[in-house]
Amino acid sequence: MKKNLLYAQSGGVTSVINASAAGVIEAARSYTARIGRTFAARNGIIGVLREDLIDTDLESKAAIAALKHTPGGAFGSCRFKLKSFSEARGQYERLIEVFAAHEIGYFLYNGGNDSADTALKVSGIAAKLGYPLTCVAVPKTIDNDLAVTDNCPGFGSVAKYVATSVLEASLDVESMCESSTKVFVLEVMGRHAGWIAAAAGLAQRPEFDLPLVILFPEIPFDEALFLARVEREVSKHGYCTVVVSEGVCDQQGRFLSDSGNKDAFGHAQLGGAAPLIANLVTRAFKYKHHWAVADYLQRSARHLSSKTDVEQAYSVGRVAVDLAVEGRNATMPVIERISEDPYRWQVGVAELKRVANKEKKMPRKFISKDGFGITDACRALPCTADVGEAPPPYRDGVPDYERLLRLSVERRLKPYSILDR
Amino acid sequence: MKKNLLYAQSGGVTSVINASAAGVIEAARSYTARIGRTFAARNGIIGVLREDLIDTDLESKAAIAALKHTPGGAFGSCRFKLKSFSEARGQYERLIEVFAAHEIGYFLYNGGNDSADTALKVSGIAAKLGYPLTCVAVPKTIDNDLAVTDNCPGFGSVAKYVATSVLEASLDVESMCESSTKVFVLEVMGRHAGWIAAAAGLAQRPEFDLPLVILFPEIPFDEALFLARVEREVSKHGYCTVVVSEGVCDQQGRFLSDSGNKDAFGHAQLGGAAPLIANLVTRAFKYKHHWAVADYLQRSARHLSSKTDVEQAYSVGRVAVDLAVEGRNATMPVIERISEDPYRWQVGVAELKRVANKEKKMPRKFISKDGFGITDACRALPCTADVGEAPPPYRDGVPDYERLLRLSVERRLKPYSILDR
Repeated sequence: MKKNLLYAQSGGVTSVINASAAGVIEAARSYTARIGRTFAARNGIIGVLREDLIDTDLESKAAIAALKHTPGGAFGSCRFKLKSFSEARGQYERLIEVFAAHEIGYFLYNGGNDSADTALKVSGIAAKLGYPLTCVAVPKTIDNDLAVTDNCPGFGSVAKYVATSVLEASLDVESMCESSTKVFVLEVMGRHAGWIAAAAGLAQRPEFDLPLVILFPEIPFDEALFLARVEREVSKHGYCTVVVSEGVCDQQGRFLSDSGNKDAFGHAQLGGAAPLIANLVTRAFKYKHHWAVADYLQRSARHLSSKTDVEQAYSVGRVAVDLAVEGRNATMPVIERISEDPYRWQVGVAELKRVANKEKKMPRKFISKDGFGITDACRALPCTADVGEAPPPYRDGVPDYERLLRLSVERRLKPYSILDR
Repeated sequence: MKKNLLYAQSGGVTSVINASAAGVIEAARSYTARIGRTFAARNGIIGVLREDLIDTDLESKAAIAALKHTPGGAFGSCRFKLKSFSEARGQYERLIEVFAAHEIGYFLYNGGNDSADTALKVSGIAAKLGYPLTCVAVPKTIDNDLAVTDNCPGFGSVAKYVATSVLEASLDVESMCESSTKVFVLEVMGRHAGWIAAAAGLAQRPEFDLPLVILFPEIPFDEALFLARVEREVSKHGYCTVVVSEGVCDQQGRFLSDSGNKDAFGHAQLGGAAPLIANLVTRAFKYKHHWAVADYLQRSARHLSSKTDVEQAYSVGRVAVDLAVEGRNATMPVIERISEDPYRWQVGVAELKRVANKEKKMPRKFISKDGFGITDACRALPCTADVGEAPPPYRDGVPDYERLLRLSVERRLKPYSILDR
């Protein structure tokens, strides 16, 4: 008996989340005997609650294929965490009502920790309410902090962006340091886990002896140690590149960027660990500094995505549909490393309860003893070391990204405000 | 009679200045009857004063060719402006002394406005002191503000970086704006000329109706007009992307982001317009914001350089050597547009006195009437519209940039401190 499939994107997007969408939709189209129509929720779970669904069957084959090289979230994503069943029973009942109205038998939720938790909850509630539904999570996060999976689709591309940018900017600073900027600070994402900051270490090459100092969220910031290290690098190399994670904390565990400090202009700190660190250095040594904050640029830079990352994102999307059709409820496809050198991987399966709301921190063994760099063990991680290139097509000098039609499915229910609980 | 050639890099580097270096060195190597050895000054004019020269003849053919895909300044650049002859006669005499000691007959200086001025001065002084020298400037600047030349090598690549980044980040924000960030602010370079900010407008495609607001240095910042525009875009599109030039000024002509610090040329050191603008928006409307500062990332991003830009940078390097050998003293190769559609260009020649210390602002006709966008005339500029891709080779997921040997030429003179004037 045919059932419809509903796919939704959740949380911060990545440069390859749409490759997962392409995997889901292409696989769903191939299950002609088991899957009827393939819908996508507009703006994640909010779209489900509002019965705001997109009919992906109206998108051309070429458009769906082009999602593999298009960043952002093609159907819209959201930051919206469902409360517990006892707190917000009405919301869960609404979800089931929407599923029933559109004969949804498969629900695929593409996100991180929170989203795995949401998928697990929805699965439990459907069972509780007697609605037949197979829920499968599709992993995605730039933070690389999901449990069970060897690495997370989305991370490899950010790693490539950060390593490339650090190498390029360091060559720039090096060439000017004699008479200009001596310290360059780049702020990268990763609020709780230092994986993204660690990727800066991949810029290090034997032929470039880069003076690189990394500030990890896992290592409490020690100003004296840090300044001594910067001074040593500048003395030896003439310059220094500092990569600071947005999640760096002081010895009391407070985010540096929440410290209430004033910036160089005497204004209240506007947010941003990079200017704060840069100003510390200049106050201490009078070195001229420059700083950059990559922010969304790093996670949307599809022009520089990793080929492995694109392939893994696409594959977990396809396998999620296989799992759904097989009735493997409350599961998630994961990346398994089957060989180190050469790097080979396959897609395995994890129970959602092993993934939901868990956070995988960087093991201490990947951070050098002094806390300012990465170890060879970290450098050798295949998800970062063997990534390849997957450039998008270009048109008139700018990537030729896809814009879907995103036509709405006709509503069958009464309007619902997501503020109703 | 053979003379040696000396090449030096000056000012802020670009992602393609080394392509000009490759053009110079490859052309110089081909003039076996006219040019003896080809030297490069370490760290620009400072290296000449210190007699700190690099012997490029010791670099392999492959290494020089690889400069075409390597960012930064391979021989080191500098921010160091020679004073007038009357103020610093000793420095000029030292330059001539170094030229004479190493039988330099050709001096090629690769930089922007200031560097064209330096090359012109050196040429004049050599004549005054009776030293036979042909000085040729090689154009380079990301700011696109050099006179005479149709566009500047270095700019096309930054334009490609900014347009691509704005498109990518906008797709990211769009997909999250329903329940998260509504305003994204990207700060870009361009102290006095809005060319780089204007490049953001190239992200605009018919199929993506991007809500984009550009703040140009040419348009005094009007807070009320700006906020009204942002509110309108957010109401219509759900989000808004703001691109702010570091050089944006208030109605009194003061930089919004003026830190009070000055660089070696006495120019104000800027940085931090993005957080300032982002906070303005949030104070006014409570919209959640994110901001990014691209800083050196934009001008060193060789992974995303424009093919046309690489070719033009390489060509002006080659032609500069031709001009030197022909004795065309105090000149500079320039880019001439010979056809609009399809875009075709050639390298012409300008007298240095027509270039030195001049600044080409964005014509007002390239900025839309409301001051927040670009016009179709700007969009059609071939230096931005027809750029192509020129990706570098990669190794283990990161660009495989070249590291030269940079072996020093033996000194023949006594040490000299650049602080002696």
